[in-house]
Amino acid sequence: MKLGSLKSPQSLDGELCVISRDLKTAVKATHISANLREALEHWKEKEASLQKLYTDLNEGKAANAFPVDEKNFHSALPRTWLFADGSAFIYHIKLVRMARKAPLPETLETVPLMYQGECGQFLAPTEDIPQRDFSHGTDFEGEVAVVTDFVPMGVTPEEALKYIRLFVLINDVSLRGLIPEELAQGFGFFQSKPASALSPFAVTADELGEAWKGGRIHLPLEVNYNGQFFGKANAGAMHFHFGQLIAHAAKTRNLAAGSVIGSGTVSNESHDKGSSCLAEKRMIEQIETGSIKTPFMKSGDTVEMQMLNEKGQSIFGKISQKVKAV
Amino acid sequence: MKLGSLKSPQSLDGELCVISRDLKTAVKATHISANLREALEHWKEKEASLQKLYTDLNEGKAANAFPVDEKNFHSALPRTWLFADGSAFIYHIKLVRMARKAPLPETLETVPLMYQGECGQFLAPTEDIPQRDFSHGTDFEGEVAVVTDFVPMGVTPEEALKYIRLFVLINDVSLRGLIPEELAQGFGFFQSKPASALSPFAVTADELGEAWKGGRIHLPLEVNYNGQFFGKANAGAMHFHFGQLIAHAAKTRNLAAGSVIGSGTVSNESHDKGSSCLAEKRMIEQIETGSIKTPFMKSGDTVEMQMLNEKGQSIFGKISQKVKAV
Repeated sequence: MKLGSLKSPQSLDGELCVISRDLKTAVKATHISANLREALEHWKEKEASLQKLYTDLNEGKAANAFPVDEKNFHSALPRTWLFADGSAFIYHIKLVRMARKAPLPETLETVPLMYQGECGQFLAPTEDIPQRDFSHGTDFEGEVAVVTDFVPMGVTPEEALKYIRLFVLINDVSLRGLIPEELAQGFGFFQSKPASALSPFAVTADELGEAWKGGRIHLPLEVNYNGQFFGKANAGAMHFHFGQLIAHAAKTRNLAAGSVIGSGTVSNESHDKGSSCLAEKRMIEQIETGSIKTPFMKSGDTVEMQMLNEKGQSIFGKISQKVKAV
Repeated sequence: MKLGSLKSPQSLDGELCVISRDLKTAVKATHISANLREALEHWKEKEASLQKLYTDLNEGKAANAFPVDEKNFHSALPRTWLFADGSAFIYHIKLVRMARKAPLPETLETVPLMYQGECGQFLAPTEDIPQRDFSHGTDFEGEVAVVTDFVPMGVTPEEALKYIRLFVLINDVSLRGLIPEELAQGFGFFQSKPASALSPFAVTADELGEAWKGGRIHLPLEVNYNGQFFGKANAGAMHFHFGQLIAHAAKTRNLAAGSVIGSGTVSNESHDKGSSCLAEKRMIEQIETGSIKTPFMKSGDTVEMQMLNEKGQSIFGKISQKVKAV
C-alpha cells in the first residue's frame, strides 16, 4: 500500500490519500482517516479499509481517483512527534569525522549514533531548501527511514521490527558550517539540522518485496545533483538494522505512533557507488586527489532522490529540491 | 488567562479547558477549540473567545463549570511539535560540568546551549516517572518555559518575545548515568532525556504581572523532594532571556505553533536558595564537604514543583511525581 498527504488549506497535516502502485493515480482517503498522522494512531482499525481502497485504486475501480502531481503533495507525513535520526552507515561516520578531524566514537560498532531532529513541519518533497547564509555549508543527506506505530519503552531490536508500519525516504538537510561549533558545545546538533523533507509517498513493507530483509532495505538510493548522477549507494549496507535503531530510541521512552526513525546518510565503501551527501564526496576528493573540489550548495543548486524497485519503478516518488536564498 | 488539557479517552491531546485564576474551577472550552495544540495554531481567532470564557469563569458565570482535580489533567500541552530546551542558567552549567569533569564551552556566555527533547507524549504532571534501571541515575530538573506561536526563521531576540503565547513549568527528567557516554559519542542527549512533565496549567503573560520583565520570570521556583524543601531558586536569574532562546532555536528553521522553549534548570549562585535538581545538590555537597551524600532518585522518591505569585497563590498548579520501577 502507498499513502500520501495532499496539501490542503484546511490542515497542516494535509489530507490522507491512497496512491496507486505505479504512482500515477490517487484517491482521497479522508473518509477513513483525516490524515496520515491520525491513521497511524489508529492503524489497527484503519489498515484494512485503506488496503481495500488501494486494491480498488490499482484495479481502476476507485471513485474520484485523480492523476498524481507530486507538487501537490506534502512530505508523506507532513509533521509528526519524533524524528529520531540514527547514523547506521559506518562508512559515512568515518568520512564525515575525518572531514572535521573528529575522533571516532569508541562505541562506533556497538551503539548507534542518534539525535532528535526537526519534525514539526517537514519541508515538502518539492519545496525549496531555504538558505539564510551561504557560509552555513548547506548539504543534503539521502536517507531511508521507517515510520512506527506506538512502541513501548524497552522493546528489543527483534520485537521493534514488528512496530514498523511504513517506509519513506528523507533528504536530511544539514548545515555543515554550523556543526563543529555546535558539537563543541556538547549538546549535539540543533541549528545545524534544519527542516528536512520526506518522500511524497510512504509505503508498507510488501511494496519492498524481497528487498526488505534483516531489518534493512536492500535497494540503491539514487541521488542526482544538479541533474547529474551523484550516488547510487545500497541502503542494505546499514551496520545497525532498523530494529536496533528503534530499540535504541525506545530505551528510555515510549515512542508515539508516527515516529520517524532515520537510517542516517546511505553510504557504501565502494566509491564507484558515489555518495548521498556532499560532505562525503568532498572527503573522498581530499583522500583521492589531496584537495576538495566540490563546494557546498548555493542558491539554485538542485538535488533529487528516489529509490527504484527491481523493475525500475519508483517506489516512494521523488524528492526534488532546490536551494533558495531567503 | 489559564488553560489546561483534561484527560480524555477520545484524544491524546486531551480536551481544552479554561481554568479559574485561583485554580479551583474549570470549564471545557472544546466548543472554541478541541485542544490547546489546535488553539495555539489558530491563536488570533481563538484568544478573545477563550479570554471571555475565562472572565465568565472567574466571575462565577460560566455554565457547566466543575471543580479542578489536578489528577484529571494532562500536562498543559500533552504533546507538541518541538521541545527546544535551553540551558540559560550559567551556574547550573558550571556545576553539572564540574560534576562530570567536563570543560565549559568557550561560548558559555555568548551562545545558548540547546537540545531537542521528547515532546510526542509528555508525562502528566501527576504521573509516575518510569525507571527501567536504577543505574540510569534518575534526576529531576525544575524549569520554566514558554510556548510560542508560529515563529519565522531568523527572528531577532527582541522580536521573538512577541511570539510567546503561554508559560508553563517543566520537570525535565534526566538520566545522569547515561549522559557521559551519550555526550562522548558527539551527538548530544537522547536516551538520557526521557519524557518530561509540564505543569497542569499554562498561563498568559498577564497572569505573571510585574514578574514577567526583560524576557524572564522573576519568581522563585519551589521544589520539594520527598516532602522536604529542596530549592527556591529565582527564575529571573537566566543569563539568556527567552527571546534569545527562541531566536537561537529559530536561527535556521521556522518554529511550529506550540513549540515549547525551556529555560534549563533554574539555578542561583546563592546556595541557601537550594537547587532545582539533584546533580547540583550533589556537586555542592562535594564542594562544601568533600563528598556526595545525596543519591539519585529511587523507586518511591517524590518531587513537587510549583511557582507562587506575590500573593502566595499557585500560578501553574503543581507538578507532583513519584519514581516507579517498571
